Amino acid sequence: MKSLIELLTEQNLTLASCESLTGGLFAAVFTETAGIGQVFKGGLVVYSNEAKIKMAKVSSLVLEKYGAISAECAKEMASNIQKLLNTDLAISFTGNAGPSNQENKLVGLVFIGLSIRDNLVVGEYHFSGSRGEIRKQAVEAGIKLIKSNLPQN
Amino acid sequence: MKSLIELLTEQNLTLASCESLTGGLFAAVFTETAGIGQVFKGGLVVYSNEAKIKMAKVSSLVLEKYGAISAECAKEMASNIQKLLNTDLAISFTGNAGPSNQENKLVGLVFIGLSIRDNLVVGEYHFSGSRGEIRKQAVEAGIKLIKSNLPQN
Repeated sequence: MKSLIELLTEQNLTLASCESLTGGLFAAVFTETAGIGQVFKGGLVVYSNEAKIKMAKVSSLVLEKYGAISAECAKEMASNIQKLLNTDLAISFTGNAGPSNQENKLVGLVFIGLSIRDNLVVGEYHFSGSRGEIRKQAVEAGIKLIKSNLPQN
Repeated sequence: MKSLIELLTEQNLTLASCESLTGGLFAAVFTETAGIGQVFKGGLVVYSNEAKIKMAKVSSLVLEKYGAISAECAKEMASNIQKLLNTDLAISFTGNAGPSNQENKLVGLVFIGLSIRDNLVVGEYHFSGSRGEIRKQAVEAGIKLIKSNLPQN
């Protein structure tokens, strides 16, 4: 974790997060380090669909058509929190941490959205393990996704 | 943790969170349990003052007059997220997790706000230990505060 924070700090980049299945775990891990207020601008925990609409401004059309566990929802979550907090980067997590299928989507299916200035990347992952393990793997994958997509200054 | 979730579920109560120093840790701990979507409506991680203003609608007057580490800020954070998500309960965390004094306030000073329908409770705590320990103690104190202030139906 420290090296991502160092990279962001060195490059003077700001980050925001919008989390569903990880429920704040990314933000919690990220803010373990002192003095990251200049890097991490804030985050949303939008566990319910209601919160996705009210807080992350995900369109109800996207939720109806694709569901919350979808690349489309991940994109909107990342893009909207980036706009709200005006950050260089924004990451989103949505998926099924289990224990049972949701929206006919398998346990372990996770979409991670990353908004990098005007660009968007979405990763689709298939994790396995317990609920806690799936959430942890998602956070780790998110950190990797940011590292491999840092903007070139 | 499980017993608080059980209590809230039994009483059909909803909860939201707004976190500064804990940085999403409360929400992350709370959403470890499956099927809490009906109880936990969503959360904000407002680590920076900018996020406190933009996302939690804390007034800049409160931040100027009392600082972010204050009972007044904790009250606004809890009250505003409760209104936004229309929940029975809302909890907020603001304080100094260290390693150094902030706003001339000692490391370990934490305010936890709890909005219970039309009532507000604020707890002032003085924790010690590492940054991680202070954050963890704050989350535990928050859970206790909710348990001892559940509305009587």
